[in-house]
Amino acid sequence: MLDAVSRRLPGENLLYLGDTARLPYGTKSRETVRRYAVRAASLLLARDIKALVVACNTATALALDAVMEHAKIPVIGVVEPGSAAAVARADAMDREAGRDATRAPIAILATESTLASDAYGRAIGALDPTRDLLNVPCPLFVPLAEEGWTDNDVARACARLYLERVVASGARVVVLGCTHYPLLKETIASVLAPGTALIDSADVVARALEERLPLSARRQGGAGETRLLVTDASERVGRVAGRFLGREAVDLEWVDLP
Amino acid sequence: MLDAVSRRLPGENLLYLGDTARLPYGTKSRETVRRYAVRAASLLLARDIKALVVACNTATALALDAVMEHAKIPVIGVVEPGSAAAVARADAMDREAGRDATRAPIAILATESTLASDAYGRAIGALDPTRDLLNVPCPLFVPLAEEGWTDNDVARACARLYLERVVASGARVVVLGCTHYPLLKETIASVLAPGTALIDSADVVARALEERLPLSARRQGGAGETRLLVTDASERVGRVAGRFLGREAVDLEWVDLP
Repeated sequence: MLDAVSRRLPGENLLYLGDTARLPYGTKSRETVRRYAVRAASLLLARDIKALVVACNTATALALDAVMEHAKIPVIGVVEPGSAAAVARADAMDREAGRDATRAPIAILATESTLASDAYGRAIGALDPTRDLLNVPCPLFVPLAEEGWTDNDVARACARLYLERVVASGARVVVLGCTHYPLLKETIASVLAPGTALIDSADVVARALEERLPLSARRQGGAGETRLLVTDASERVGRVAGRFLGREAVDLEWVDLP
Repeated sequence: MLDAVSRRLPGENLLYLGDTARLPYGTKSRETVRRYAVRAASLLLARDIKALVVACNTATALALDAVMEHAKIPVIGVVEPGSAAAVARADAMDREAGRDATRAPIAILATESTLASDAYGRAIGALDPTRDLLNVPCPLFVPLAEEGWTDNDVARACARLYLERVVASGARVVVLGCTHYPLLKETIASVLAPGTALIDSADVVARALEERLPLSARRQGGAGETRLLVTDASERVGRVAGRFLGREAVDLEWVDLP
């Protein structure tokens, strides 16, 4: 996500906050996720940012409204852009398959908390109320991605078990509805039918952010800087952050969140 | 652990605190674990308890001294009792094998943070400085246990990968150095050599607690009560707690921790 935003808006200064002391969010209750997400947003808002991306599906699904209430700047979640991309792709694939083809369902791979919120159901339903959805919680993909076990025996056994239902459903569009899942993209693709479209929201979210920042609001003067804030800065966090951000995380700055 | 204590001291009232909003601890830095452990202990100490068990290997390894500083009552960690049990067992197995047998190493399965602290190394070294140790971090066992995936293809593939080194080392005593690991006991045993001893600290910790409570300090008057406090009380936490505590977790009480 950070990489996608930085490619699209290379002149902007980026401030990234990872709540590494309290992740994962995807197994927590609505109340806890809302409390943590609002506190994280408050820390960023206090640093004079001009737009805020909630780059976590669970926090978007459970707390986007609460974060928006606290912000007077553009706030972009990951669920709506991802949903729009999935619906557009499913429609395109239906058209290619011809008018008599069955409308295949869209599968949503996400955390338990994201699926319990039905945020994807509502977002996709608003765009196409006739499309069937298949909700598939994949909680272990998160620790697998953090461990760097993205294409070994354990990852493949896990993907086969979680995605059996997706294969059986005939879904041709599969939403990677958690920021961790794109790291397992190849393993996920390997157990699905060939030609299945995997929707990663990073690029569409970066585009949505660009649209919300008018040219007059853009920073002038060369390449922007990126600062990485974390709530827990162990050696392990540095290692995992490197995998996620696609860059060396050498300069992690520790911050405390209540 | 709760069950072992309750079997050994059935007349005592038990107060259990699970920091479910911020688990797992095993991947966090020393600073964060110490901060969280001290705050959790303070909450319990404020409720007039007469003894405190730090029933988490990572919290024991990284923060037992800090918790003890805050407490004027007996504080029992899980590392020393588990280490004593492992050394005694390894000695007994050496004796059985005869005087010419090689002294096999003891393997410690634990979280990254527990192993980085070398708490087991120090505790076992104090009892037997000549015994070799094999440190084996098994971070994915925690989410597998929480998921209830304790004896499927994923759990077996994971155990095979983590424990290859243990098999190759010839270790005959293996410490389950994280409170989650005993849930995977059978899968772990299935990939190790037959006859390998798995050390689960629950019973030895319950015994250590009993020894620290003189008869005069014991509660009189029938069966004690158990109260379960959690920092996140989602439906999922109720489900997972049930698996861990060996009882239905119907009466979870939510508490906030700073």
